[in-house]
Amino acid sequence: MSEPPAGPYDVITMGRLGVDLYPLRAGVPLAEVETFGRFLGGSAANVAVAAARLGRRTALVSRTGADPFGEFLHRALRGFGVDDRWVTPVEGYPTPLTFCEIFPPDDFPIYFYRRPKAPDLHLDPGDLDLDAIASAGVFWMTGTGLCEEPSRTATLAALRARGRRSRTVFDLDWRPVFWGGAGGASSDGGSTGHDAMAAARPHYAAALARATVAVGNADECEVATGEREPRAAAEALLAAGVELAVVKQGPKGVLAVHRDGTVAEVPPVEVEVLNGLGAGDAFGGALCHGLLAGWELTEVIRYANAAGALVASRLACSSAMPRPAEIEALLAGQRP
Amino acid sequence: MSEPPAGPYDVITMGRLGVDLYPLRAGVPLAEVETFGRFLGGSAANVAVAAARLGRRTALVSRTGADPFGEFLHRALRGFGVDDRWVTPVEGYPTPLTFCEIFPPDDFPIYFYRRPKAPDLHLDPGDLDLDAIASAGVFWMTGTGLCEEPSRTATLAALRARGRRSRTVFDLDWRPVFWGGAGGASSDGGSTGHDAMAAARPHYAAALARATVAVGNADECEVATGEREPRAAAEALLAAGVELAVVKQGPKGVLAVHRDGTVAEVPPVEVEVLNGLGAGDAFGGALCHGLLAGWELTEVIRYANAAGALVASRLACSSAMPRPAEIEALLAGQRP
Repeated sequence: MSEPPAGPYDVITMGRLGVDLYPLRAGVPLAEVETFGRFLGGSAANVAVAAARLGRRTALVSRTGADPFGEFLHRALRGFGVDDRWVTPVEGYPTPLTFCEIFPPDDFPIYFYRRPKAPDLHLDPGDLDLDAIASAGVFWMTGTGLCEEPSRTATLAALRARGRRSRTVFDLDWRPVFWGGAGGASSDGGSTGHDAMAAARPHYAAALARATVAVGNADECEVATGEREPRAAAEALLAAGVELAVVKQGPKGVLAVHRDGTVAEVPPVEVEVLNGLGAGDAFGGALCHGLLAGWELTEVIRYANAAGALVASRLACSSAMPRPAEIEALLAGQRP
Repeated sequence: MSEPPAGPYDVITMGRLGVDLYPLRAGVPLAEVETFGRFLGGSAANVAVAAARLGRRTALVSRTGADPFGEFLHRALRGFGVDDRWVTPVEGYPTPLTFCEIFPPDDFPIYFYRRPKAPDLHLDPGDLDLDAIASAGVFWMTGTGLCEEPSRTATLAALRARGRRSRTVFDLDWRPVFWGGAGGASSDGGSTGHDAMAAARPHYAAALARATVAVGNADECEVATGEREPRAAAEALLAAGVELAVVKQGPKGVLAVHRDGTVAEVPPVEVEVLNGLGAGDAFGGALCHGLLAGWELTEVIRYANAAGALVASRLACSSAMPRPAEIEALLAGQRP
């Protein structure tokens, strides 16, 4: 990926990047896992991979440790066809790790090794190619990127550079543990959940005022807007500034509401879930693809749902991101 | 291990405990390793396992995260026959991880995930059963236990409880990265090596004044005494307070000097090295065993050398600790 890009990128994502160390079998508690496979991971990275798999010219803005796992991530990104030119090393902090437990159909605890600070939270406004970000077809950032400085300022600077251009996506990605929530599992939302949400909300509001698309589940909508009920959450996201609100309701499907009055309600694609981790990122990459294609809203969401379902039916995350033919086959099989 | 101990322990070790995530093949750079095996690790834990394999009643004093990897470590310790009653969880810090690269015969970089603080450095004097420590046949502590509070105070309190009893062993275990050295690999000893040594030396001196046996390689002797030359280092360790100095010289073998004038110089056992990690801990466990047996010094060191060589010839560490018959067979094969 050393040749200069031919015109603007289709998709630039910004945020979390790390090594996922996942059990090679489902249903085994982490305390009993004997061997782990290592994969590229991190939400922003996975979305970039998902978009690249769909043929989009994609780049990631992130950072790694200055260590062998950082080298691996560069190779993996290039292998997936994601431009890694804006992925830079940080001295002194190791490349983050994520472990998970895989208990289908709906329990996938994850354990982060991102302390004392993840390199991707060291993104500085000076690291950004604001012209490239401004001209990309889609710019995608995440809630985690707002949790610490200098990443928060950098993320808001990138949003500002977009000038409220369409397809400026805020993935509401909510990880309470990064906001002072206790524990290491993403499922944490107990006694510290409300404190963590209160800490995050003003920063979510600042980003919503600059983004044009918001994507999130009930917890994520609650952080962003205080609302959990899907329709109310969508309206609150629109009121906070975006043009398009995409509310993921798990087994109830997805509700998307556009400021112009268009509404899409799409049921989930039925698959046997093996590992739910990464499904949201597959959804995200496919959402980018569909928005760029200019499809009808219902078609975009249906396509993104199918991409998410395919990854949920597979053990891996980044390496399981589907190709267009796989999504089309799944959708075709669903139609009468 | 819930039954009360029948009299004093043969060996109590105190210090580092964590999960080792090791490549399942040698010769592969970490950036290219696709699957990792997980093992019990940490120097003090490995020494305890090595002593237990030799039939000694052994306990470990350490801490883990309050997480699934901590559970695994308890199970693994019990599986190896090491009493885990003094291994307690710490809230808020994850169980530490160690990755390695295996480039035989002599390059085994390791990468620690022990930040912001390892649970085993949260050992507090109040956590200690000082009567059990005082009455154990061998008490074994390490230099790493001195690098941070409250572990430093706890380690010195344990030494004080021994009252300079024989077989109070200071494993000089030198990991500059834990003392302000840069980088994540144990091989770090560059520009920050001297600063890290200067920070550590007073604490090493305080422990040497309470220990009766010191064990270390050239780097470790230099931290403790300023001397790297084996004979000078041994004399400096005796002058600093111990009765027995054991200086490991790598391919040149081991020099042991007792205050009573006994000297043992033992050449290395020739084996094909596959993974040098853990060999020093095997040496340590066998040293405990030989000292407890009351053998001649040369016999003790020869036996410990053979134990170390066996582990160096194997890929794993803790799970590769040898049984007595294996050590005896190796020694028997060496004799004309």
